[in-house]
Amino acid sequence: MSEAASAPAVRATAGDSEFDRDTALVRRAPGVYDIDLSAGWTIINAVNGGYLLAVLGRALADALPHPDPFTISAHYLTASRPGPAVVRTDVVRTGRTLSTGQASLFQYDEDGREVERIRVLASYGDLDALPDDVRTTAKPPAIPPLEQCLGPEDGPAPVPGSSAIADRLMLRLDPATAGWAVGRPSGKGEMRAWFGLADGRDADPLSLLLAVDALPPTAFELGLTGWVPTVELTVHVRCRPAPGPLRVSITTRNLAGGFLEEDAEVWDAADRLVAQSRQLARVRLG
Amino acid sequence: MSEAASAPAVRATAGDSEFDRDTALVRRAPGVYDIDLSAGWTIINAVNGGYLLAVLGRALADALPHPDPFTISAHYLTASRPGPAVVRTDVVRTGRTLSTGQASLFQYDEDGREVERIRVLASYGDLDALPDDVRTTAKPPAIPPLEQCLGPEDGPAPVPGSSAIADRLMLRLDPATAGWAVGRPSGKGEMRAWFGLADGRDADPLSLLLAVDALPPTAFELGLTGWVPTVELTVHVRCRPAPGPLRVSITTRNLAGGFLEEDAEVWDAADRLVAQSRQLARVRLG
Repeated sequence: MSEAASAPAVRATAGDSEFDRDTALVRRAPGVYDIDLSAGWTIINAVNGGYLLAVLGRALADALPHPDPFTISAHYLTASRPGPAVVRTDVVRTGRTLSTGQASLFQYDEDGREVERIRVLASYGDLDALPDDVRTTAKPPAIPPLEQCLGPEDGPAPVPGSSAIADRLMLRLDPATAGWAVGRPSGKGEMRAWFGLADGRDADPLSLLLAVDALPPTAFELGLTGWVPTVELTVHVRCRPAPGPLRVSITTRNLAGGFLEEDAEVWDAADRLVAQSRQLARVRLG
Repeated sequence: MSEAASAPAVRATAGDSEFDRDTALVRRAPGVYDIDLSAGWTIINAVNGGYLLAVLGRALADALPHPDPFTISAHYLTASRPGPAVVRTDVVRTGRTLSTGQASLFQYDEDGREVERIRVLASYGDLDALPDDVRTTAKPPAIPPLEQCLGPEDGPAPVPGSSAIADRLMLRLDPATAGWAVGRPSGKGEMRAWFGLADGRDADPLSLLLAVDALPPTAFELGLTGWVPTVELTVHVRCRPAPGPLRVSITTRNLAGGFLEEDAEVWDAADRLVAQSRQLARVRLG
């Protein structure tokens, strides 16, 4: 793996990284957590949906008896902004191998009233307790080596507009899916990239929740220029990721009626399919 | 389309069919509904998860200002049984084009206490209000004509074990994905079938919630014989289905660690991709 090409001189470690600090929650009461949403994970003016999902995922990991999100479904209600937020969790069911919980993230309107931003339903388990049996037929995405992919220094920027999140990520786009950035979209609903955290912190199940929603929208390669807000996003974490950069492949097959799905696969440095996700998003057809 | 081959002499209509009667709810209070879960939709002894999702979907269609489930995510907690149940709904957010709701289905233990079976989070809209724009690259599944596919009268039964649901469905399996029934599974995680309701009632968004979970599990074609309980199932309804039989194609790519995903596509008689779903299910590896 070409990890060295992108790793900073001093690598942050899980628990002591930008991602961990910006998703850290303060427990106000049992199941209730305060957080200051960081402006470091915004795209244009929106707080990234994957960062928000990781915040909710961390709250549920604390509230539930099992550590890892096996399947987490989020419905995005209103646009989150950097600043104070509260996460309220509810333990739905506790089982031997799986437990299910619910969480909502709220912010405050001008009168200090809570406004719900996202509601999540998730089932957690212990990835380390799963058998090693692998019979997958899925193949890693066809993506060039990391040093042949495009990062910010290669301009055009991998994400359009002012985008603080770009500074937090190691994101290198497959040139075959970067045509939109130079006005030549491929017309295919595909986006592929190498993904990591800029400070070198290795991936874990929580950062996978960020990885599935961190690439430019496939809609850009379909020639659409408007933003593509997520309505619903479900992530399945299938395996604890190995150290090293991830490969993320996103595909859209059905753009119709002003909506599209984005199917993401995340592969780790050991060639394991570590996460699968699907989201339903709205598009402005233009 | 070969619909005539499978249509009964007298066709039931939406609102007056087995499916409608067995998903009908009695409103006990605002947002609270009673239902007697029918034994007619059981597979072996389990109540079909798609039937249960349709019951919850119908409750939310009543509770929310928008009629159609655009995206609905269900986490299955405990096994439902035929008999009395109560559905409690909660309106999460009401918007102009989308509204979001939550619903739970409960049954009763021997002491009469409520036991939660399923919890659902869903965003509803109005399919008829969507623009006609279709840029899909998805293609209908390669499946032989209906009369060349296998129904119960062709034995082996399309679903193993005693299965009341088989009498409620028009389900004809692609011979290429029916090898498991004669001890010759293909080894591929694929299952394809023509799908309808046995009484001829045409499909609608609610019956699509049943269609995505009504085929035999892909695990059978992977050579697994145990049952495959659903942990989480998310359905996107993308288009109101045209009259006539549906084609359902289910694919599994990643069987690992005792879990697998099932991706379903549902196509209508007008060659429109009307629903997409993904579920995470447990497998007994053997």
